[in-house]
Order: sequence, then structure tokens, then C-alpha cells
Amino acid sequence: MEEINSIEVVPCTESNYLKPFRVSYNQNGTKKSWDFMRTHDSVSVLIFNTTSHCFILVKQFRPAVYMCEWEKAKTKTPQAAEKTEEGEASESQEAQPASEEESSSQWPPASAGVTYELCAGLVDKPDLSLEEIARQEVLEECGYDVPASKLKRITSYRSGVGVTGAKQTMFYAEVSDDNCVSAGGGEPHEGEFIEVVKVPLHEAMTFAYDERIPKTMGVIFSFIWFHNNMSPKYKISTNV
Amino acid sequence: MEEINSIEVVPCTESNYLKPFRVSYNQNGTKKSWDFMRTHDSVSVLIFNTTSHCFILVKQFRPAVYMCEWEKAKTKTPQAAEKTEEGEASESQEAQPASEEESSSQWPPASAGVTYELCAGLVDKPDLSLEEIARQEVLEECGYDVPASKLKRITSYRSGVGVTGAKQTMFYAEVSDDNCVSAGGGEPHEGEFIEVVKVPLHEAMTFAYDERIPKTMGVIFSFIWFHNNMSPKYKISTNV
Repeated sequence: MEEINSIEVVPCTESNYLKPFRVSYNQNGTKKSWDFMRTHDSVSVLIFNTTSHCFILVKQFRPAVYMCEWEKAKTKTPQAAEKTEEGEASESQEAQPASEEESSSQWPPASAGVTYELCAGLVDKPDLSLEEIARQEVLEECGYDVPASKLKRITSYRSGVGVTGAKQTMFYAEVSDDNCVSAGGGEPHEGEFIEVVKVPLHEAMTFAYDERIPKTMGVIFSFIWFHNNMSPKYKISTNV
Repeated sequence: MEEINSIEVVPCTESNYLKPFRVSYNQNGTKKSWDFMRTHDSVSVLIFNTTSHCFILVKQFRPAVYMCEWEKAKTKTPQAAEKTEEGEASESQEAQPASEEESSSQWPPASAGVTYELCAGLVDKPDLSLEEIARQEVLEECGYDVPASKLKRITSYRSGVGVTGAKQTMFYAEVSDDNCVSAGGGEPHEGEFIEVVKVPLHEAMTFAYDERIPKTMGVIFSFIWFHNNMSPKYKISTNV
């Protein structure tokens, strides 16, 4: 179980990760402008373990998700609402909940920020193919060593079309217990705390549509993709 | 066809839309920090027209997507895009350069930034239910007037878990030609240029997996959801 404490939030004027840009342009004769951020494309991998008939997902604490939940809890809490009645205008106030009194009541449990996701990574190594990058992520995050050639491309699409618009490419990888060479878990020296979790095939569709389990659309989509395209191979009948 | 020109890009230090924050915290004894952005939750709607047996999507120019493609074109071609022969980047020269120095070939055609998406909108009206907000979007963007009670919740999930972590809720709406009260297209006075497009049911799965058609995962997932859950009702057999 994650333990999260000593939380502090400040506006961030100089981020190495989030760099807003503004593009102005003329669309069909109308002058417009749009704020966006540059980001890397990414890959994600649906991993199926053919030995245990389980999907391999990663589970991790996501600060951005957590802060969303914090924001909602705050809006709902009458005490907190007193202090931030004017919505948007009070954003600078939101940045200082550091005192003891506030923290215990205002901060949701760490679990509010934990999500289930496909193994995934950024496309930030120009020399490597998408398959190679996906392969590295499968090894680092989940501990399975599979050749890039075994990665099957499912499809690609655009994510965050309002803000980043990056391209995500999704792969499918079949692994077996024999391919498992480490516990995975990401790069601890980079501060990654990634838990590798198994979802049995026969529970996958229930998992996918259970809204109480926080997850990305990639998990839902890929489970259904598997159900439609791979399940017959594994002689599994599941309800969608 | 979109016409985009007079493009200029500048770093954006004060955006009303993108406000980076930094949260620092202690996770399992390790001090960490993460840059994130606040954003609204959102709703999206898979619309199926039972009169014409078509899905109703929206298609629009997305500056963030366009800038991604611009970035790639720039990186790929040392001497700007005089050699952007491969694929999308070279289809036309609709977009004009920001200045004389930047050759016109640097800017990809406007089509590089156009995506197919589900009708969608931000959850930014605290007084309205998700269904009410979804209903308004269906009316504004696509021109169909359907009661909120006719919206069926498909599921919800987290988006942009690295940066925003907002919750997206997806609905399904059946409409008929009788519900069509306007051409849709968004709010032109807000500068929205949204094209309403129809995808015939029998072409939907091909559309979903055709990577040459830029789209969001919501389109792919919802088409497959329909295929699995609704197609029998419409006695349609499609290949997934």
C-alpha cells in the first residue's frame, strides 16, 4: 500500500516537463490562437502471460490523478469550500495546504491517486524503433524479456488532442513465465514505484468495466481487443 | 477543407488554460515532486443514428496535434520539408510559413492536424449532471436534441495520467433524423469550426483500425463497444 504524506503544491513557472506554447494562426480566415504543450509520443503494451493466463498491468501512484481527487474533495467539503468560495479566482490559495490541521482532513488517501495502466513509455530515444522502446518498457516495468519482434502492433491514435495531441501506439505481447527475468517495478533510482499486477483472463471483462477500479482507457480497450481477437485462441468465453 | 496559415509559435508563460503546478510529497519514505496541470473532467458521447445506421463523429483542426506533426517534420528533414515526400506531410502546401525565412515547406498541410473524435466536452458547469452536459454537447456540436435521460453511460476512466489525470465519462446516445434540429458545428462565435461526419455502421470497424485516419482512442473503443454490445440489435455482422 502506498504511503503519501508531506504534500505541498505550488504554481510552477519553470517546469522541465511542462512547457506551454502558444500558436497563433489563421483558420479559414479567422484569427485564432491555442495554448498547447509539447510532449513525446508514447507506446503502450498489452501483456498476456500464456503460462498463467493473466494480463500483466502496472499500478502506480499518479500525482496528477491524486490532485484531481484532492480538488474534488475540497470542493465537496463545506469547511474547505468556505475558504475557496470563488472557484477559479482562488487558485493561488490552493497552493498552501501544508499545515497539519488541513492535511489530515483535506488530503484524500493515497489510493485516490493510484491507477491501473498498461505498461507504457515515452518515445524519447530517436535511435530506437517503437518496438524496441516498447520492449524496454516491458522489461523495466514488468520484468519480462521478450524480443521486439514478438510485439504485435494493435493500432495507434491521438491522445490529449486539446493539449498535447501526441501519438500513442499500442502493442500486444505474449509472454510466458520463462520470459520473466526480474520483478520489474521500473527504475527505483529514478524514483519509480511501479507495482506489477496480474489480472486473470476470466476476470478481465469485469475488471475492464468496473468503474470503481481506476484505470486508463488503454486497459479497457485492449482487454476488449483481446476478447474479440485473441480469446478464441485461448478457448475462453467471457461476457463483454 | 481546412485552410490554415499565418502560423506563429511562442513560448507561453501566462496561459489562462494551461497552468502548471508542482506537487512535492513523500512516497514510502522517498521525497518526490511532480509537475502537473489542473484540468476539468470531461464527457464524450458515441452517437448512433438509427435512421441512417451511421455513427456521428466530429472532425476538427487540433492545433496541438498539428504542432506535433510540425515538430516531427522538422526533425525528420534537416533541410526543412523540401523532402517531406513520405505520406501525410507532403500532401499540400495549404499552410503558409510564419515568416519569409521559414520556408513554406516547413509547415505540414492543415490536414495533418485534423482528427476524428467523439462528440465531447468539459465538465465545467457544477450545476449540471454529466448527462446534461453530454446532452448539451450533442446538441451544440452535432445538432441532435435528445433528452439527457436517453444517454446511456458506457464507462469512465482516467486520461493523461502523467499530466492531468482527469476523469472522462463516456455515454452512448441513439438518435434519429427526427432529433436533428440544426447542423451542429459548435459555437462559431467561440471560434469553433467543427465538422459533423457520419461513419456508416458497416464501415465502422475498418474505420476504427485504419491508422491512416487520425482519431482518438475513444472512437476506436466505442465502435468496438458498440460492435460487441449493440450490433446484435441492429442485426449487423462486422469483422473486428
